[in-house]
Amino acid sequence: MTTNMESIFLENEHKAALEPEKYATPELVQLACRNGYKGSTTGFAPGFVQANIISVPKEYTKDVLLFAQRNPKPCPLIELIEDGNVSGKYFKGDIRTDLPGYRIYKNGEVVEDYVDDVTPYWNGELSTFLFGCSFSFESYLMKVGIKMHHIDAGKNVPMYRTNIECEPTEKLKGHMVVSLRAMPSGQIALASDVTSHFVRTHGSPIHVSNPAEIGITDINKVDFGDAPIIPEGEIPVFWACGVTPQIAILESKVPFAISHYPGMMALLDMKDEDLMNW
Amino acid sequence: MTTNMESIFLENEHKAALEPEKYATPELVQLACRNGYKGSTTGFAPGFVQANIISVPKEYTKDVLLFAQRNPKPCPLIELIEDGNVSGKYFKGDIRTDLPGYRIYKNGEVVEDYVDDVTPYWNGELSTFLFGCSFSFESYLMKVGIKMHHIDAGKNVPMYRTNIECEPTEKLKGHMVVSLRAMPSGQIALASDVTSHFVRTHGSPIHVSNPAEIGITDINKVDFGDAPIIPEGEIPVFWACGVTPQIAILESKVPFAISHYPGMMALLDMKDEDLMNW
Repeated sequence: MTTNMESIFLENEHKAALEPEKYATPELVQLACRNGYKGSTTGFAPGFVQANIISVPKEYTKDVLLFAQRNPKPCPLIELIEDGNVSGKYFKGDIRTDLPGYRIYKNGEVVEDYVDDVTPYWNGELSTFLFGCSFSFESYLMKVGIKMHHIDAGKNVPMYRTNIECEPTEKLKGHMVVSLRAMPSGQIALASDVTSHFVRTHGSPIHVSNPAEIGITDINKVDFGDAPIIPEGEIPVFWACGVTPQIAILESKVPFAISHYPGMMALLDMKDEDLMNW
Repeated sequence: MTTNMESIFLENEHKAALEPEKYATPELVQLACRNGYKGSTTGFAPGFVQANIISVPKEYTKDVLLFAQRNPKPCPLIELIEDGNVSGKYFKGDIRTDLPGYRIYKNGEVVEDYVDDVTPYWNGELSTFLFGCSFSFESYLMKVGIKMHHIDAGKNVPMYRTNIECEPTEKLKGHMVVSLRAMPSGQIALASDVTSHFVRTHGSPIHVSNPAEIGITDINKVDFGDAPIIPEGEIPVFWACGVTPQIAILESKVPFAISHYPGMMALLDMKDEDLMNW
């Protein structure tokens, strides 16, 4: 994250807590973003689904659909919005302006780390994919008594690029990204049970304990998010992460793509519990 | 089913039981089909996944992918084989000859009720979709003590076209087809638990009891398969069924399509338990 973005985050981090009525529904969050809000969406519109987004040229539509089908844990597809349309069945705002921030990719590189409005980049041929996000299951893990240490500390979840190769398509390949939550060993089966029912937000864990086996050599060195908080005696548990499609965009050198800025998600007109109606 | 097909079924029905060594693996079943076997695949290559197939012109590929994503319970996609290829990662035989039988569809009608070789219809532009089938979870239901009355009676599972509309795509729409299994009320939660983990073979039930609510006015009048066996006091439980894509092909008047003949499935190089590794 750039220093500039850090200050934007710091400035906005606690807006939802300070002004809950302003961020209580997807529509209000979208309106706030359109009017200049530039921070994380963590804790906004509680109970509503937050989604990862990727917009790609239409010649990539079939490959992203197939990549999602072949890799449902990291890429749990909730909605596809086609032909440059800016809203859909579950995302009812304007996808170009109603997220706090975006990233722009060209030929396998991030060419704009942060923009707050992608209207200048938009065209009628983009396909926008909305993927489920672990925000939706974290509240359920907390309800059954499992502590989310990063939430308690006001931090972003730690994320790592693994050595697990996603099942590729003709045009897309990439390594899986995972998010980490640590817990006492006695809670691992419960966490697995609960999240197994959220198949549209990454499902049950990909890996438990021993980070080296999935290519994580130093657990304290994250690739995305904040450093992990692992209390003495607790075990790291890894879930597939919605940053994976962004890595696939980069590794596959897709000529053009837009994603949300990490932590600045799309708010959907769908409740977390709707994701359990598989 | 035509009288001709009935006699073919009768002639072949018990081949697997009589000659188990001939039908023990996917490869042996495929070979038998290539050499003229024309019956049901029920009970063949026990433990291996059997799949529904649909081949469509490539301009329908994206719509079928999206239809599957939007309707995962009736259309649990296991594999897509593109560009007229005849084998894939999980189906290793020749998709044109290695099923016992096929159906041909044109413009919303079945134009050939049964053919045993689709090579004359094949071209380099077909996309073939392999969808999971309830055969894979039935053995697990039996392992936990739930009787499959149709299997005990040597019959096909009863299937019904419902009034539930699938979520459409631009080019595809259709009503959901369900399969019925009756059981004592005390086993319904267990059956739901077990099948909830088979998300690639229809998952948990779509409906329990009261068939009228999903548009089934006469439970004894099936649309596909055999008449139901419902012992006194047992409750009908309905699962989404892999015949649904065939109904979508018909209702959407797709210009050309090939499916397997009902009950004559594709044998995959994948074990039933692999389907639980979501």
